[in-house]
Amino acid sequence: PSISHLGHVTVVVVGGTGDLARKYLWQGFFQLYADQVGKGHTFSFYGGGLSPTEKGTPLLFGILKELACPPELSVERCDLVKDQFLHLSKYHQLKTTEDYEKLSQQIKQQLGQEGMVEAGRLFYLSVPAFAYADIAEKINNTCRPPSDAWLRVVLEKPFGHDLYSAQALDKKLSGQLKEEEMYRIDHYLGKQVVSKILPFRKENKKLLDPIWNKHHIERIEIVLKETLDAKGRIQFYDQYGVIRDVLQNHLTEVMTLMLMNLPANLSNSKEILQNKLNFLASLQHVDNSNAVVGQYQAYNEEVQEELNKTKDYFSLTPTFAGVVVHVDNAQYEGIPIFMTSGKALDERVSYARVLFKSDVFCVQDPNNVQCKSKQIIFYLGHGTLQYPAILLSKNLFKPKLASSGDWKEVTEYKDVNMLGLPLSDYYIQSPVTPREAYCELISHVFFGRKDSFISAEGLLASWEFWTPLLEGLSRVFPRVYPGGVANGNLLNFQLQGHQVAFSHEAVVNVIKPGAEDNFQVMQGKYRSSEMVSAWAQELVERLASDLLLAAEEAIHEEGQFHLALSGGSSPVALLRALALNLYTFPWRNTHIWQVDERCVPHTESGSNFRSIHDLLLQHIRIPYFNIHPMPVHLTQRLCVEEDSGPTLYEKEIKKHVNGSSFHYILIGVGQDGHTASLFQDTKLENDEERLVILTESPIKPHQRMSLTFTAINRARRVGVLIMGKSKHELVSQLSRIKGESSKYPITKVQPKSGTLIWYIDYDALLG
Amino acid sequence: PSISHLGHVTVVVVGGTGDLARKYLWQGFFQLYADQVGKGHTFSFYGGGLSPTEKGTPLLFGILKELACPPELSVERCDLVKDQFLHLSKYHQLKTTEDYEKLSQQIKQQLGQEGMVEAGRLFYLSVPAFAYADIAEKINNTCRPPSDAWLRVVLEKPFGHDLYSAQALDKKLSGQLKEEEMYRIDHYLGKQVVSKILPFRKENKKLLDPIWNKHHIERIEIVLKETLDAKGRIQFYDQYGVIRDVLQNHLTEVMTLMLMNLPANLSNSKEILQNKLNFLASLQHVDNSNAVVGQYQAYNEEVQEELNKTKDYFSLTPTFAGVVVHVDNAQYEGIPIFMTSGKALDERVSYARVLFKSDVFCVQDPNNVQCKSKQIIFYLGHGTLQYPAILLSKNLFKPKLASSGDWKEVTEYKDVNMLGLPLSDYYIQSPVTPREAYCELISHVFFGRKDSFISAEGLLASWEFWTPLLEGLSRVFPRVYPGGVANGNLLNFQLQGHQVAFSHEAVVNVIKPGAEDNFQVMQGKYRSSEMVSAWAQELVERLASDLLLAAEEAIHEEGQFHLALSGGSSPVALLRALALNLYTFPWRNTHIWQVDERCVPHTESGSNFRSIHDLLLQHIRIPYFNIHPMPVHLTQRLCVEEDSGPTLYEKEIKKHVNGSSFHYILIGVGQDGHTASLFQDTKLENDEERLVILTESPIKPHQRMSLTFTAINRARRVGVLIMGKSKHELVSQLSRIKGESSKYPITKVQPKSGTLIWYIDYDALLG
Repeated sequence: PSISHLGHVTVVVVGGTGDLARKYLWQGFFQLYADQVGKGHTFSFYGGGLSPTEKGTPLLFGILKELACPPELSVERCDLVKDQFLHLSKYHQLKTTEDYEKLSQQIKQQLGQEGMVEAGRLFYLSVPAFAYADIAEKINNTCRPPSDAWLRVVLEKPFGHDLYSAQALDKKLSGQLKEEEMYRIDHYLGKQVVSKILPFRKENKKLLDPIWNKHHIERIEIVLKETLDAKGRIQFYDQYGVIRDVLQNHLTEVMTLMLMNLPANLSNSKEILQNKLNFLASLQHVDNSNAVVGQYQAYNEEVQEELNKTKDYFSLTPTFAGVVVHVDNAQYEGIPIFMTSGKALDERVSYARVLFKSDVFCVQDPNNVQCKSKQIIFYLGHGTLQYPAILLSKNLFKPKLASSGDWKEVTEYKDVNMLGLPLSDYYIQSPVTPREAYCELISHVFFGRKDSFISAEGLLASWEFWTPLLEGLSRVFPRVYPGGVANGNLLNFQLQGHQVAFSHEAVVNVIKPGAEDNFQVMQGKYRSSEMVSAWAQELVERLASDLLLAAEEAIHEEGQFHLALSGGSSPVALLRALALNLYTFPWRNTHIWQVDERCVPHTESGSNFRSIHDLLLQHIRIPYFNIHPMPVHLTQRLCVEEDSGPTLYEKEIKKHVNGSSFHYILIGVGQDGHTASLFQDTKLENDEERLVILTESPIKPHQRMSLTFTAINRARRVGVLIMGKSKHELVSQLSRIKGESSKYPITKVQPKSGTLIWYIDYDALLG
Repeated sequence: PSISHLGHVTVVVVGGTGDLARKYLWQGFFQLYADQVGKGHTFSFYGGGLSPTEKGTPLLFGILKELACPPELSVERCDLVKDQFLHLSKYHQLKTTEDYEKLSQQIKQQLGQEGMVEAGRLFYLSVPAFAYADIAEKINNTCRPPSDAWLRVVLEKPFGHDLYSAQALDKKLSGQLKEEEMYRIDHYLGKQVVSKILPFRKENKKLLDPIWNKHHIERIEIVLKETLDAKGRIQFYDQYGVIRDVLQNHLTEVMTLMLMNLPANLSNSKEILQNKLNFLASLQHVDNSNAVVGQYQAYNEEVQEELNKTKDYFSLTPTFAGVVVHVDNAQYEGIPIFMTSGKALDERVSYARVLFKSDVFCVQDPNNVQCKSKQIIFYLGHGTLQYPAILLSKNLFKPKLASSGDWKEVTEYKDVNMLGLPLSDYYIQSPVTPREAYCELISHVFFGRKDSFISAEGLLASWEFWTPLLEGLSRVFPRVYPGGVANGNLLNFQLQGHQVAFSHEAVVNVIKPGAEDNFQVMQGKYRSSEMVSAWAQELVERLASDLLLAAEEAIHEEGQFHLALSGGSSPVALLRALALNLYTFPWRNTHIWQVDERCVPHTESGSNFRSIHDLLLQHIRIPYFNIHPMPVHLTQRLCVEEDSGPTLYEKEIKKHVNGSSFHYILIGVGQDGHTASLFQDTKLENDEERLVILTESPIKPHQRMSLTFTAINRARRVGVLIMGKSKHELVSQLSRIKGESSKYPITKVQPKSGTLIWYIDYDALLG
């Protein structure tokens, strides 16, 4: 067979004379060529750029001449291979559609002349992300290889700025390229230690399985510390900040590999992807309360300078972030995962560490090595160790060394301390030959190993997780830190339940121009009743803690707390806060009732019960018998009169709730003034004693079941939660109406002997 | 007013010349007298004993002469008080009823002569527990004071040997004495640090509340280490062992004070008792898997000698125990509580320690004091510190010092290390005046402070908790340890999930005469199907792990696992194992169905669903929608034909379960051969397609709902669990029957294409 029996491969580096290409990409392609030459493929390489040929050619060759020899090649052999590589490489202007057409013709022509079959075309887009869609379109329209050859287009982050922009970008790109043609790079996935995480977990499965869970893991830390700052890159950086730059991609990938279900087959990309998605879906929602952010002191001046801003301009972009993430599944629940990254810190280092609880009780001899802390460290490089490695404290177990021979055991110990233990207390494994991440990934593109790249689904899942936090943080002033060793303990942060806060009061003055006042909770009167008002998050926290107080009081007095919850969108944040933050809430003695329900099965997504379940019930431990869904689906029929659902629910209320007086009823208000499922047109039963009725909503699904005003007004406490700008007009109107108005059913909420409290956020109150 | 205006108090120490009386009790009463003299009461003291007066009197005065002076008295004052005390003290033979009668007459006579009013009588029973009932009867019959004076009878542990004997003792005693007349002493409750636990928690409530929970506490250790052995006390000790001697009482009391809900009012005995009982009720069941036991090497020879046993006699009494306890409530769940005590260890020390998780992430500066371990230690004495104290690591917070002035802050630090930190890293509080526990408690008896004593309810609750473990351990061979420093790390033990095991293989030979074989799991055939047999606990563990495998397989294939569970007593241990030990069980994808149900409301204790709920569901996190109780109580009526409960359940099965083939159905067998609720007389529907029917049981409650044989025989796997000697005859009979027999409904269980497995414990198999 001819040496080219596997066909010809064309590599096009778009942005081929840029920074990334110069530093990493050409070196990677040179390595690929050196590895593959004589193994059945032939190659040609194009460096593409906006400059005309006469300007681009010397630039490209300037770069190529500087390429380093792969360590495994002799000097003579390298000289030879490098000569060939330079000979096969060309600059090609790539600006207009015609340029791309020309490139494609050139490839075809060359192949024809040399009688070669085409194996595939590899485009590496080393250009700003805003150019992706345009280039993808040009490639699609003009540069597709014949159908029996492959097309692979490599993309670099950022892939969007949040979930919506990532979806938009994905939509544009997927109009031009198939998912299997796109290779989204996260260079962390090319790091040898990162790509070893799954194999390491597999090789040591037997010993890891019993301890890889909440009973044994105390905490996980995933860390990328940089000494560098963002100077000179502000144009890019200020739009993104550290969470988009590092946490959303690199650190999330590392976390996922560490905690996803181990696939049965490590070469089954589909299974790996599915397990990754399952893991991302199991992460607990994070918001401002789970993060601390900082900004190095010089940053804001750099922003003013590089973005031409005035001296009173403040950027809120964080250059440091600490986020605590929790996984919401039985295996990992409760384990804090500290994700941290920052610029201008004291050292450059990156690692992921699993710290185990001390599971030993040392009756005697507490200095025994068994009683010391146990940990596994995936060390990505730099720092005290200076090379990538996996470290296991010796009191854990001795890890298996894979038979493939590309990893070795390190037995020479520098006299340094690594995260609390002397290096000699670890078993250390390290790659035999260090390889650059880009080299690895370029080789993986060539071999079509898609699982080393970010899938569209994985990308969107990650953005879905991070976007709410990013939105929340867009209003938060980062703590200013001096940079370097001078940061001292200023950035240390600590857990409070699932939340985090900086451990120390800031000593450096924090910029907070008038912000403080904005976050205060305000108390006053509304419609002659008590009103609490604040920004949404603070309001919800206040309501949650008021509920806790009410629960404790009721349980102290009667042994149980009867709480009735509404559907709708307002309670979402509240239910989440109750589920996650108030871990001392006495659920065991709390009964959950419904204020109203739509006549749909409880398992359907439109069901109020379903949303109470998903947001609250599935996160807490509450006796089954304390849950009282409205019987809208009795005998598998929806709200049929003969089934007497309302009567049954009334009976249940009377049986459990003392005097049918709920301790707390939480309701909302619709823009039309309805509350519970009591609308302007709802015919109220003549019988004042009815507690539950069927009603008709003007909006689909029309059929509803609802507590009556009689039931609501019997409660000890009624809280009305109103949030969002869309309710502002209503809030204003209601404030002008005295007493009842048949137009606004909410005005009929007037507890007989109980208390009414309005919780109205600033958006709804102030518009 | 006369100096005796509060009346006369008579103190009778029964066993007044014994060891305990000599070492502690008389000193305590002398202190009481010194404290109270001139404050309104007059006193007389009797030392009672079996010896006649001429022998007892010199013995008693030998003891009294040696009494030490209370530190707060001057030498002269002490001499005077001691003279008075000796003058007021008498020996009195107390053997027969007449002796007690005589004592009572003597008291009356003296009071009459001196014209004094009687305030009360205090009997301190310092005698072996077997004598309690008899003495209580004599006191009740002959020695009761007039109705306006109090009677208080102080009892020393042991209060029984297990739950049943404690109940029996309680019954006997409560026939003679009222609960408020009995003062059961646990001398730990008189230790100053122990009685400070609740006040300390109260004083520092604000700072403790946020961290006193599972999110912050890493572990709790409650430790009593002794260097002494049991030599000379084997007669007593060998009947009890370390768990009854120390864990069931002292360490349990300490744990309870640390973790019970803080009462609103620290002087409300009733609230304190209720909170203690609530706490004890929330402890997770412990069995052999939660404990390790040891026996010091010389012990067995001591037993042979002191109990006159032959050289081949082996005592299984543990002299060392490590038990891990978990609390089953939202606040503490998952926190391991290590309770440890042993004789012949390397040092004498007792403490309770709360170790907090490191909740700080130290971005820089990891040697900062904030990043060190945080703990609170209730130090009861001895060990490195040599005095009782409460220690808080300084990175936690500075505790308040109670204004009462009986505790002081220690600021002189010995240069020693205390549980991982130098002493100077702690805030230390210590009592101003050290007081013996017995002194404290004798004063509390005098003042009627019942909360310093063990209540009958508290005692029984504690025995209820410990008895199953004690029963389980009665078959377990303790690990033999050499004693003292030589134990090295031999007794260190470690967690595996909620279970524990010694950390190191025993190097000393462990006595296990032929025991190993008894614990093996056996596999074979029974009625032509597979059979697994073992002792009950091992059998249940095996079945649980088989269920886990079946669940994983089903979820891998179909995304969900449908499991149908029976009622009855056999599954109790299984449900418990599923709830507590298999924390990786994929509950989120598991659906729980019922095999059969009694026609009673689900909340009643006779309901199968109720027992599945209490044993399993309330301990796990499973979506509400995955729970499928049989609809026996539709529309609040029980199994009414018109409600078509069976049809509804059939519909639900068909909707969720692929081909109505459950992945696993777990059933049992009654002694009469019935299974599910299918009895010998059950008329099977003609319709072979029915999956659920109503049946009649010969036993109450008669009405039942049950899966049919059609449903059972469609399952992929059917497990039949049979346990206990009472089933032995049935197991033998069934083994002789080939195929179906109408007499034994269980024989109709013959899965069409699924597998049948019999799980039969050795008791049922071998009788």
